Amino acid sequence: MPNGGWERVIQKLEVSSLTEKQLAKTIDHAVLKPSSTEVEIREGCSIALKYKVAAICVNPCYVRLCADILKNSEVKVDAVIGFPLGANAPVMKKAEAQRAVEDGAAELDMVLNVGALKEGDYKYVREEIQQVVEAGRGALVKVILETCYLNEHEKIEACKLAEEAGAHYVKTSTGFGPEGAKVEDIKLMYRTVGPRLGVKASGGIRGLSDALAMIEAGATRLGTSATQTIMEDWVSRNYK
Amino acid sequence: MPNGGWERVIQKLEVSSLTEKQLAKTIDHAVLKPSSTEVEIREGCSIALKYKVAAICVNPCYVRLCADILKNSEVKVDAVIGFPLGANAPVMKKAEAQRAVEDGAAELDMVLNVGALKEGDYKYVREEIQQVVEAGRGALVKVILETCYLNEHEKIEACKLAEEAGAHYVKTSTGFGPEGAKVEDIKLMYRTVGPRLGVKASGGIRGLSDALAMIEAGATRLGTSATQTIMEDWVSRNYK
Repeated sequence: MPNGGWERVIQKLEVSSLTEKQLAKTIDHAVLKPSSTEVEIREGCSIALKYKVAAICVNPCYVRLCADILKNSEVKVDAVIGFPLGANAPVMKKAEAQRAVEDGAAELDMVLNVGALKEGDYKYVREEIQQVVEAGRGALVKVILETCYLNEHEKIEACKLAEEAGAHYVKTSTGFGPEGAKVEDIKLMYRTVGPRLGVKASGGIRGLSDALAMIEAGATRLGTSATQTIMEDWVSRNYK
Repeated sequence: MPNGGWERVIQKLEVSSLTEKQLAKTIDHAVLKPSSTEVEIREGCSIALKYKVAAICVNPCYVRLCADILKNSEVKVDAVIGFPLGANAPVMKKAEAQRAVEDGAAELDMVLNVGALKEGDYKYVREEIQQVVEAGRGALVKVILETCYLNEHEKIEACKLAEEAGAHYVKTSTGFGPEGAKVEDIKLMYRTVGPRLGVKASGGIRGLSDALAMIEAGATRLGTSATQTIMEDWVSRNYK
């Protein structure tokens, strides 16, 4: 597969004809709590393998462990970068991305610099994303906008900057801000850069109905820790 | 002054005889929101200078700006490291500390690896703190426990590990977790490592009564964004 093995599924999915396999492949199973232990990360990998999701999304200190566990599977390791505040020095985000890829990450979810975006320093925001894309050497890069802090104009500009910088996805939220993904934001992001870039919905996706609403709006990836609930709800809805 | 210019005030302060100057010197004025712009950082520096607090506590991307603004003052720049999740790769916390000091930080507030602590990997936790202390080259290092995730045993062990690793302060919270500083935690931390190490209370300190309760319990630093409220309450209480 090109580009480090990630699949570029960014065309809108049809909810009416969605398959179980497609649903699973929208999910980045998130295990991001600061208190997550190695035991919990291993459990997360088991869930990711069981349901054959797209990736497991973890903090950088667990990338190598996950890469070891998942090495003979289709499940990718997705590392968060500059997470969750996005207010690190650009050189550190770049170094963190580089390190994560060396440790085995095939995907990188980076938080853009929200403060710089809000004050209109687009050059700063764009160049920082570019550096992470370059450091990723082919890894799939998703740019987290942290939409809860942005107005509509800022959301649109952020999507454009992500595209100009060569990123592959825009993503709504870290899950650590005051609010998560909203259907309206997914629609706006898809209208702005889809399907050239993919759209990932994350934060507050707790069940199948949330998941389907996001897919309907244009999301092709979902960041969630409710993978089991979503997949079991799917099975019981379709096969009962 | 030794150790990069920070004052080692770690003996318990007497609330009954506390002066305005002493109170101000307990405060690390925090401007840590991901959405903080340069304008807001400059305002934060003005507040820090006006009240002559100990330090301004900022995300790494703003360390250089603050160091420029505060270069002819007594107010230190305090950079957060591995913030707020503490789940970065150790090598990245070290590099981030190094970079922050190069940018002008005299103090470093690092988040320990909560997951590693909880699973009892004390060697990992200790060595990571040691690396940040070394990278700090004399900077005052405060270790954030993120107490809201820890039981009493874990809090005690974390304090001991911070001391063994050569850190100078233990600190309760990032302000981004589900709970902030509690008087009982300050007492426990002071009993465990005070006054050899200082204790910093942070998260949820919104006024003078919170501040004094923490000082009474053994805190000699307070992380707060309510600096103006606290200092104005002090003045109106003492000089009205």
